[in-house]
Amino acid sequence: MPDGENRKAERTRRGILLKAVDLASVEGLGGLSIGRLADALSMSKSGLFAHFGSKEVLQLAIVEAAREVFVRTVLAATDGVEAGLPRLCRLSSAWLAYVEDGLFRGGCFFAAVASEMDDRPGRVRDRIVELTRDWIEALEKEAAAALLAGQLGEGSDPAQIAFEIHAFLQEANWAFQLHGNASAFRLAARAIRRRIESEATPAGLALAAVEFASFGDVP
Amino acid sequence: MPDGENRKAERTRRGILLKAVDLASVEGLGGLSIGRLADALSMSKSGLFAHFGSKEVLQLAIVEAAREVFVRTVLAATDGVEAGLPRLCRLSSAWLAYVEDGLFRGGCFFAAVASEMDDRPGRVRDRIVELTRDWIEALEKEAAAALLAGQLGEGSDPAQIAFEIHAFLQEANWAFQLHGNASAFRLAARAIRRRIESEATPAGLALAAVEFASFGDVP
Repeated sequence: MPDGENRKAERTRRGILLKAVDLASVEGLGGLSIGRLADALSMSKSGLFAHFGSKEVLQLAIVEAAREVFVRTVLAATDGVEAGLPRLCRLSSAWLAYVEDGLFRGGCFFAAVASEMDDRPGRVRDRIVELTRDWIEALEKEAAAALLAGQLGEGSDPAQIAFEIHAFLQEANWAFQLHGNASAFRLAARAIRRRIESEATPAGLALAAVEFASFGDVP
Repeated sequence: MPDGENRKAERTRRGILLKAVDLASVEGLGGLSIGRLADALSMSKSGLFAHFGSKEVLQLAIVEAAREVFVRTVLAATDGVEAGLPRLCRLSSAWLAYVEDGLFRGGCFFAAVASEMDDRPGRVRDRIVELTRDWIEALEKEAAAALLAGQLGEGSDPAQIAFEIHAFLQEANWAFQLHGNASAFRLAARAIRRRIESEATPAGLALAAVEFASFGDVP
């Protein structure tokens, strides 16, 4: 194919996948066959089949599309932000904004599909496990950098901090999706700020102060 | 029917429902039709239909069966335990044990079905919303009792504490189900203990000490 047609095909593919991520955030990934997606997008099944070939290839492509959105909206928010506590706070606030802004109807794509896929061995599950691990490790890496830079006190445990912050983020998404509880974002922001402040050194607190200011109405 | 037959029918019904809760903890609730359950239990579809009549009635009965297990294994663990911090700790440790013991293959039933059902309006979703709210309110009630009894310092916010403890519990279940991370239970126990200790009064700490002792290897 000439370049122009290649680019056009790629744009079409991306457009399909973004709608598929949105649909999967609501309905889950397991039921998202090529036929179901064709119905939902009012496209021909054969057209979608030409793009993806099988249900597993489609599901894997949806997971990668969700990852790209995550990288663009959450990880990219730390560009130019200092490593350690400032970046740990920025990752947290960017994640809360990503869910609160309703980018996908069902909230966080990975939270929506994790409990569905955790009992279904295969390449799709493996990739979800890998990406969700990467995300927790990204939080832990910043906590470890904060410890190394003297922003957190010496007794701090980066794995423990990452576990707790990740718990608060997922809880906010869960409470918002299931209970429609919009105050969950404020509760999560407050919990994260409180948790970081409980072990930060004065130098760490000073550095993170700019991030905390945009972080919720913690007294 | 004579009493003996009534009791036998009731036992059969309960046996079916416990297996259905287990299956739903793995496969989700949406796909659990009378036909699918009949396959999984090697029973006749007409026999199951006689017990439940419709998919919605079956799903609601499964939710109630899961609730009964929850009451029996988690809420009942607080019998004879003092209100406030001791009972808050006991609810937390009983919940962690309930998931760690692998009572259902897919972990906590409500965690397994919440993200699946949160976008599906109807009686099943409404009941899940109600029961998960009740559980968070049970945690908040004990935090409020602790505050009233002077076990928590005056600035403590029961809703904030319930949000955080519930987040740690769900995170342990999530990390164990998806990542097979058994250390998540220890991380959660440590987080909960640390959170309670951060706002407990000396009197509260003394009261909760017995519970903390069985709570994980927090230094």
